[in-house]
Amino acid sequence: MARVLNFSAGPSQLPLEVLEKAAKEMTDYGNTGTSVMEMSHRSKAFEGIINNAKDNLRKLMNVPENYDIIFMQGGASTQFAAVPLNLLGDKDSADYSDTGAWSDKAIKEAKKYCNVNVVSSSKEQIYNHIPDLDKSKLNPNAAYFHFTTNNTIYGTKWNKLPETGNVPLVTDMSSSILSEPVDVAKYGLIYGGAQKNIGPAGLVAVVIRKDLLEISKEKAKTITPTMLRYDICAENNSMYNTPPTYSIYIAGLVFEHLLTLGGLEEMKKRNVAKAELLYGYLDNSKMFKATVRAQDRSLMNVPFVCKNEALSKEQKEELEKKCVKTAADAGLINLGGHRSIGGLRASIYNAIDLNGVKTLVNFLEKFEKENA
Amino acid sequence: MARVLNFSAGPSQLPLEVLEKAAKEMTDYGNTGTSVMEMSHRSKAFEGIINNAKDNLRKLMNVPENYDIIFMQGGASTQFAAVPLNLLGDKDSADYSDTGAWSDKAIKEAKKYCNVNVVSSSKEQIYNHIPDLDKSKLNPNAAYFHFTTNNTIYGTKWNKLPETGNVPLVTDMSSSILSEPVDVAKYGLIYGGAQKNIGPAGLVAVVIRKDLLEISKEKAKTITPTMLRYDICAENNSMYNTPPTYSIYIAGLVFEHLLTLGGLEEMKKRNVAKAELLYGYLDNSKMFKATVRAQDRSLMNVPFVCKNEALSKEQKEELEKKCVKTAADAGLINLGGHRSIGGLRASIYNAIDLNGVKTLVNFLEKFEKENA
Repeated sequence: MARVLNFSAGPSQLPLEVLEKAAKEMTDYGNTGTSVMEMSHRSKAFEGIINNAKDNLRKLMNVPENYDIIFMQGGASTQFAAVPLNLLGDKDSADYSDTGAWSDKAIKEAKKYCNVNVVSSSKEQIYNHIPDLDKSKLNPNAAYFHFTTNNTIYGTKWNKLPETGNVPLVTDMSSSILSEPVDVAKYGLIYGGAQKNIGPAGLVAVVIRKDLLEISKEKAKTITPTMLRYDICAENNSMYNTPPTYSIYIAGLVFEHLLTLGGLEEMKKRNVAKAELLYGYLDNSKMFKATVRAQDRSLMNVPFVCKNEALSKEQKEELEKKCVKTAADAGLINLGGHRSIGGLRASIYNAIDLNGVKTLVNFLEKFEKENA
Repeated sequence: MARVLNFSAGPSQLPLEVLEKAAKEMTDYGNTGTSVMEMSHRSKAFEGIINNAKDNLRKLMNVPENYDIIFMQGGASTQFAAVPLNLLGDKDSADYSDTGAWSDKAIKEAKKYCNVNVVSSSKEQIYNHIPDLDKSKLNPNAAYFHFTTNNTIYGTKWNKLPETGNVPLVTDMSSSILSEPVDVAKYGLIYGGAQKNIGPAGLVAVVIRKDLLEISKEKAKTITPTMLRYDICAENNSMYNTPPTYSIYIAGLVFEHLLTLGGLEEMKKRNVAKAELLYGYLDNSKMFKATVRAQDRSLMNVPFVCKNEALSKEQKEELEKKCVKTAADAGLINLGGHRSIGGLRASIYNAIDLNGVKTLVNFLEKFEKENA
């Protein structure tokens, strides 16, 4: 069957060039006579793969020298535990902002290990915005300040970084990593699950400032599982045990691909153009509306709902479902909103290009006309 | 380049049929127009993949109804923590047998969470055998008895199960899982890293008796990271968060492949024939000898060394290195022993067939003649 346009929130569409290269190299990588999947992680060929991936991620994100890059397993959900276990040090408290279901899970997990000071939350408004930060609520003695950069389910994004003084920023960047440049120097630690803009699920990229690695080394809680220790992972070049070799290889191909396209400045240009097109349509539609106010909008996840006030709640939901189904029949798949909030959502990660979004907007315009 | 014979201890050779199928389906799985790597884990297509994988693993290992099968991340090394964190319950002690570097790591990790009673060890003999079990050393009140079924580095295997009464057996079966039938009912929990006989690194299969799942649910230590909880993983069909979808897909292809070949009875027949051929050569060679006594020999990992007593230690090592290099030049790769013990080692997992071992033995015979 022809390739579809896949608006899944993750795992999500990958660059076709990357998939085709992987397929071509599946039984013989770089003249080794083996698949990457079959390679010893101690082999020269795999060392080349992991070091290239690291170097290219450093180049892409412009990661300063005083930061290390490590690859871990277990998704962002494992980081929810790893962050407090490694970074609390002598402190017993951390600040968290609650901007979505994943923030909430991070908070619940951290509560196992420390006092969690929830400094802001939009939970009561079903996370439809990024709440303002009341600075008086910040704990100057917090071990770190944790937030979710981009909230996949609700389509919100921190478009202005929180100012926390000497308290290091720790962020879950899973659904916006590599979508635009970030100033890494402003963060203590950035982590991102691979299954959106990086590659296959089961891999997490962690960018960590070296003084935080020291805290992990000297003061990680003794109950920390070895595999969750940042310092041990870093000291072993992400190979304390066998890493997810094939996932790292695919991630490496994606990094190369992004560099070829022009890096994150270019991705931002493209992603802004894509988002403007889609939000532009939604802001002018008579049938649909975006659910997030302009200043908090995500470039990657665009949720929207039927807005026709002449319709009952049930009729709106019916129309939304019809739209998702009609789109899928036309090869535009996974446009349903997250099961917890319904509606529609288009995740337009890096691998969806401007033409993909044009196709979507054309489809929505046609659907709107036909169902006016 | 032509495919080589890959005797790597892991990640290791996979069935060519599986790799070719994966390559063919890379950009379009089952007429979905997407790669498995791009699929939402909540999609029907992926649910089919994970449920088939589970069902086929159950069939292959003949897993009884009162056991669940879950897929986790982080390798066996993460299980070293997960086992005590989940299974100690009201107890504060567990029995461990120390038969190799991985047993030793499991012991060190468990010590973070409980009293570890090391009931037997072959450490002082550099793990060259499976030590006898002095039953008087067993703690009848231990939460479980942990052992490593097959010791990848040393080529030893528990060919007779320890008898521990009501204390559940917990085993790391990473390097022998799926090589022969096992009586699952004799175990409380079996875990295995995928990167030998199952598929890509980054995936762990866990077979757990349901009463132990209950202990995990009711009495797991409160400090247990959610992602390490057996009960939560089981309740969510291994999808509490995004699982390593592509690795599960490849594992599923391997399970199907093994069922097509005739299942584990057939694999055992083949693996015994392979091992007999290789050990047979080694036991009769004038140049090499196997390092493990007959009753403890692994079917999967066959370490051997130069035995010519006329040679100095250095000369032996030189000959071993020459053999590894000459073999690699002839397309038989990764025959070097583990860096901690040197010598040679042929890992002959399921995907190396009898012809592969014949090729190896022919090579060794030729090498022996030419270097007599």
